[in-house]
Amino acid sequence: MKILGIDIGGTSIKGGLVDQKGEITNLFSLPIDKKLNQEEQIAALIFGIKETYKEDDFSGIGLGIPGTINPKEGLVLFSNNLDWHELAIGDMFKKAFPNKKITIDNDANVAALGEVKFGVAKNEKNVVLITLGTGVGSGIIIDGKVYEGENGQGAEIGHSLLVMDGIKCTCGRKGCLEMYASASALIRQADEACKSRPNSRLAKAKLNGELDGKIIFEIAQKGCKTAQKVVNNYVKYLSEGLINICNVFRPSTIVLSGGIANQGSYLIDKIESYLDENNYGFPPKAKVNIRCSMLGYNSGIIGAASLLF
Amino acid sequence: MKILGIDIGGTSIKGGLVDQKGEITNLFSLPIDKKLNQEEQIAALIFGIKETYKEDDFSGIGLGIPGTINPKEGLVLFSNNLDWHELAIGDMFKKAFPNKKITIDNDANVAALGEVKFGVAKNEKNVVLITLGTGVGSGIIIDGKVYEGENGQGAEIGHSLLVMDGIKCTCGRKGCLEMYASASALIRQADEACKSRPNSRLAKAKLNGELDGKIIFEIAQKGCKTAQKVVNNYVKYLSEGLINICNVFRPSTIVLSGGIANQGSYLIDKIESYLDENNYGFPPKAKVNIRCSMLGYNSGIIGAASLLF
Repeated sequence: MKILGIDIGGTSIKGGLVDQKGEITNLFSLPIDKKLNQEEQIAALIFGIKETYKEDDFSGIGLGIPGTINPKEGLVLFSNNLDWHELAIGDMFKKAFPNKKITIDNDANVAALGEVKFGVAKNEKNVVLITLGTGVGSGIIIDGKVYEGENGQGAEIGHSLLVMDGIKCTCGRKGCLEMYASASALIRQADEACKSRPNSRLAKAKLNGELDGKIIFEIAQKGCKTAQKVVNNYVKYLSEGLINICNVFRPSTIVLSGGIANQGSYLIDKIESYLDENNYGFPPKAKVNIRCSMLGYNSGIIGAASLLF
Repeated sequence: MKILGIDIGGTSIKGGLVDQKGEITNLFSLPIDKKLNQEEQIAALIFGIKETYKEDDFSGIGLGIPGTINPKEGLVLFSNNLDWHELAIGDMFKKAFPNKKITIDNDANVAALGEVKFGVAKNEKNVVLITLGTGVGSGIIIDGKVYEGENGQGAEIGHSLLVMDGIKCTCGRKGCLEMYASASALIRQADEACKSRPNSRLAKAKLNGELDGKIIFEIAQKGCKTAQKVVNNYVKYLSEGLINICNVFRPSTIVLSGGIANQGSYLIDKIESYLDENNYGFPPKAKVNIRCSMLGYNSGIIGAASLLF
């Protein structure tokens, strides 16, 4: 039977029924009402689900949630984006849907699981997924299962060091990967370049509005030297982070997701050429595939449902 | 029945019979004759074992070997210290001991397994061990089992980046943890400090002979400001590497082994105070224990035998 996959984001919630082939039907979405407290927000979600679906439509519910999650206890320990603390979402769902299997996990973890069940790393055993967005999230699959760490607090690869005594991170450390390889970091790096190269095509684009990752890559591809320098520098930081993953995990595949990953082969080619030169390992070294997520806009729903397949 | 644990080092091989409590009897050791080729060295080891033990003394042989190992195939892909390449040691042992179980693995991996089976992390599920010696080795235990990565090439935490564009490492990267947190790195850092502080107690000790990790720590504990500065700087690098392990794995315990780990509480107290201030994780955060190995001089033998318990 189908699984109801729920993808909780910072401002809205999406859901859909996912079958064993990873195909989605009956999509719904719901804005998060920030005026409600956390329990009321969950009550509204449960109400929305009961309005949208019939009891027999699905056999279980998987939820992907941004933040620090303890899947065993069904607890959201902390979610920065949602301002949720110690939220017993698992128990609330079990009470509302007593005959259904309920599982929750971190959004990057479920995204990684989705790729292993239905995506670019199908049936692979050891896979790491990195989300390149406002921050750098990560999901680690070992032996086909999500690696959580104690209390669900592992897999924070974005908060491993890249630059000793570097830029201050939101987590308190200085020099985390997240501060150099997130989409936000790329935009910051581009903003700085615009200041020193005010006549560049990149700086002119900035005058017409805020830069985003897509625009920076587009301008680089059109030949702007300043934008190319920004992109190459960004690729260096990101690739050094990926080599860390290669050396520590040596997974069969690293999956990139998030807006930046939409750059496809332009980005992947640059990363692969950097990795070919610098990827540690004595011959015959095991190649690590670098791939972009292909589950697209609904990957969060598919991933959340994967928890129960 | 007992397991024969074999600990292969750079210059000699140690072995012993290990029982189910992790206790060792019938120790032997054998120098490695560098004039022999790799297959002849293994033949000499097999001969030594047959001379020392009777057929009924043990039910299997576990071997811990420095380098890149593929345990599934019983292959030493590459061992820098031993100058071994593509050595089918597993097959050679199976041929010589057809009725025994034979397993091989990397020395840091077996050390980690030994700690989980018999040492300071007994019965814990997720544990990372770091060896602080000439280099920085690592063994990762996930769900009670050694994590190998593809082709046995994971778990090279020593070759994750700590300082972007930092000191050139033997692996080809610049700025690896190994270049800042190994015993060799501590000695290099002390040598540099001696040059700028030629009148310090540390510099005077250096005039009386080469510095080693033990001496540097001793002089620091006796109050030499220069040595204390060297040690504190070393602890910062090492601790930042340990925080990476906390954030990526959030294990229950990190075990330190190698000569530096003999510093015990003087070192651990410094590390714990650094981690308390900087260990990422939203409350209630799962504390990671930092412990020194207690299996001692024969930990390699116990670890190698652990492969078969």
